[in-house]
Amino acid sequence: MNSAIEELQNKGKAAKASSRRLAYLPADIKNKALENIAADILNKKAEILAANKKDYDTAKASGMNAALLDRLMLDESRLQGIAADTRSVAALPDPIGETIESRTMPNGLKIEKRRVPLGVIGTIYESRPNVTVDISALCLKSGNAVILRGGKETINSNIAIVKVIQEACRKAGMPEGCVQFIDNTDRSLVDHLLKMKDIIDLMIPRGGAGLIKTVRDNAAMPVVAGGIGVCHTYVDKTADMDNAVAIVYNAKVQRPTVCNALDTVLVHADIAKVFLPRMAAELNKAGVELHCDERSMAILEGDKSLKIIPAVSEDWGKEFLALIAAVKVVDSLDEALEHIERYTSGHSEAILTGDDAAADRFLNEVDAACVYANASTRFTDGSQFGLGAEVGISTQKMHARGPLGLKELATYKWIIRGTGQVRL
Amino acid sequence: MNSAIEELQNKGKAAKASSRRLAYLPADIKNKALENIAADILNKKAEILAANKKDYDTAKASGMNAALLDRLMLDESRLQGIAADTRSVAALPDPIGETIESRTMPNGLKIEKRRVPLGVIGTIYESRPNVTVDISALCLKSGNAVILRGGKETINSNIAIVKVIQEACRKAGMPEGCVQFIDNTDRSLVDHLLKMKDIIDLMIPRGGAGLIKTVRDNAAMPVVAGGIGVCHTYVDKTADMDNAVAIVYNAKVQRPTVCNALDTVLVHADIAKVFLPRMAAELNKAGVELHCDERSMAILEGDKSLKIIPAVSEDWGKEFLALIAAVKVVDSLDEALEHIERYTSGHSEAILTGDDAAADRFLNEVDAACVYANASTRFTDGSQFGLGAEVGISTQKMHARGPLGLKELATYKWIIRGTGQVRL
Repeated sequence: MNSAIEELQNKGKAAKASSRRLAYLPADIKNKALENIAADILNKKAEILAANKKDYDTAKASGMNAALLDRLMLDESRLQGIAADTRSVAALPDPIGETIESRTMPNGLKIEKRRVPLGVIGTIYESRPNVTVDISALCLKSGNAVILRGGKETINSNIAIVKVIQEACRKAGMPEGCVQFIDNTDRSLVDHLLKMKDIIDLMIPRGGAGLIKTVRDNAAMPVVAGGIGVCHTYVDKTADMDNAVAIVYNAKVQRPTVCNALDTVLVHADIAKVFLPRMAAELNKAGVELHCDERSMAILEGDKSLKIIPAVSEDWGKEFLALIAAVKVVDSLDEALEHIERYTSGHSEAILTGDDAAADRFLNEVDAACVYANASTRFTDGSQFGLGAEVGISTQKMHARGPLGLKELATYKWIIRGTGQVRL
Repeated sequence: MNSAIEELQNKGKAAKASSRRLAYLPADIKNKALENIAADILNKKAEILAANKKDYDTAKASGMNAALLDRLMLDESRLQGIAADTRSVAALPDPIGETIESRTMPNGLKIEKRRVPLGVIGTIYESRPNVTVDISALCLKSGNAVILRGGKETINSNIAIVKVIQEACRKAGMPEGCVQFIDNTDRSLVDHLLKMKDIIDLMIPRGGAGLIKTVRDNAAMPVVAGGIGVCHTYVDKTADMDNAVAIVYNAKVQRPTVCNALDTVLVHADIAKVFLPRMAAELNKAGVELHCDERSMAILEGDKSLKIIPAVSEDWGKEFLALIAAVKVVDSLDEALEHIERYTSGHSEAILTGDDAAADRFLNEVDAACVYANASTRFTDGSQFGLGAEVGISTQKMHARGPLGLKELATYKWIIRGTGQVRL
């Protein structure tokens, strides 16, 4: 075995040993560690920013584009943001140790279902160095040890930040080894890391679609990652027009590059002639391009100020991540439900309606993580749901669905206390 | 595409279409369906038993061994057992539709986390025809459609039973297509079934280790299956001797072929000289063979009536599924914890002690689905935990851990009701 793999395995073993104590650590120690991290990120800003400058200069010299350079770059205000986020996680309720269910059986056995950490969480992420702090804070708060593997572009920043985190944890009395950082950027180590299922209970990739696919395809352990969101908003014939225009605008325009942004608007034929021109005019102010089916095209094509083109079949079920929306006229709620069933990615779907029965049918029948009546799909987010921080949005049905908060970084165990009971 | 695959896909589509309505079906219709199944299994016993006799005769003529023949065989009393089990599932609370969490956010959004079915459950199982009814009842009660694929040895029995189930569902007003049976026993269809991840949300294999491994290795969708259980019981120095002997006996002897049966006894050195002879004498009454480490061998070898042999390294961490137990003397709770950490399968582990602090350490630190103080590991079971029926015991940490009951055949969705809210 080569020494890099041996070192990786030793870090894994140290994380696992640490996780045993982390599992039942009091909340105040975990919170103290997070408060220390927040304080020391600012106390040690000179070291962190100097390390980050090395990464930045190297990346710039290598020809990295401006958008990626910006993601990589830290400054004092970004460090303050990271510190504030860490304090927010510290302020959340401790998810661990809660009794989820309990009962005493007729034979006297006391049975408790108690929330406990998963154990060791691995994370592989790309250029943003804030992820180093963010994911460490979420893992530690939820009682998990963490093994971090950042990108080589931010290696100096990450080394400086991890040093701060590890020292902050030590001062708080956290178990030794709870935060491990892989400072060897050899890519073959990633393959090895993805096979360490006896050490790592859950792998969280953070980054682009390519990274997420690599991790999903190769990880031997379970993976959670933000999914794609193909989000539909169906404007029913009884929708309030002003609300509907405002909601569609918000869902498409407020932050078009994220998974909960609107992709397709379905409009009931009875209101299409009134609604579509109003909607299109509003979206046009933000420069939204509409990909229209034949019927919506017939309604809108007279207005030459609009950016509209005929929809092609690939537009249905497409996540645009841009100021583009597909538009389709439907004759009924049933047709809307069928369209959504065919094209949903199971993320966030909305109906805008004044009809409670239509809302109930939609909310019952659409099979997605988050189903909305009369609100913007942009609300799909851990903090907007009152869950605090999140590691992503799950579109899978097993384990956790929708925003992945601290509770979703936990599992449970059954604790049974007896006085000598045997099974009859 | 060949016609068998096309038929399989059509059955899948029918199940999926059915699952949309099943998802919000009132409990009384689902319960009525189960009551109908229970009644009709007995009403139609002549047809079912005649079909089963065909399977039995074919299997016997082909040289099937007596144990497998017995598993395949149905008679009136077994049908009564199946009917009673189905009625028990009907009597359980409906897991679906429950509001798990709800809150109203400051902006007025009403957010509800509601338990909903997974959708479509597939199951691949071996010779026992009772599984056809059992798993159908659990799936229907939890609002899921089910696709059944039984073994070819019971094809006639299963066809007769499924006819009863489908007719019973129809009479109760269940959505058409909720129970699908694959009557083509071509094995290549299994490969195809295991790839149908767009239709099947969860696959449950029921049968031997080979079947379970095949399904785990090849399924494109999530799989839940009963895991292996390497179960340790640690007898601490303060354990009550009478209780400890009785618990170890029960855990090993009451049903040695199941996953929650004891495999290894760890005994604190301070009590080993008193405890081990008493334990060994008791286990000897049931014919248990002990595989002893050196220290326990030194204590027990004087008693020539015992079945004892020296343990080999493979005995630690072995699931015996037989009247065999490994025995080891340890010097401390820490040594017991280390041994368990090294060899646990994460199923069920127990400490027998009079010391509350030792019990707490064990219950906190052992990383297993079920951790016991002063009781037999044989209690790891859905009905013993008060959960009603179960589909197996999970040793994984994601989604569900320990007994898999009706709630574990469900997921949840987030339902958000607004009055025009947009994200700021």
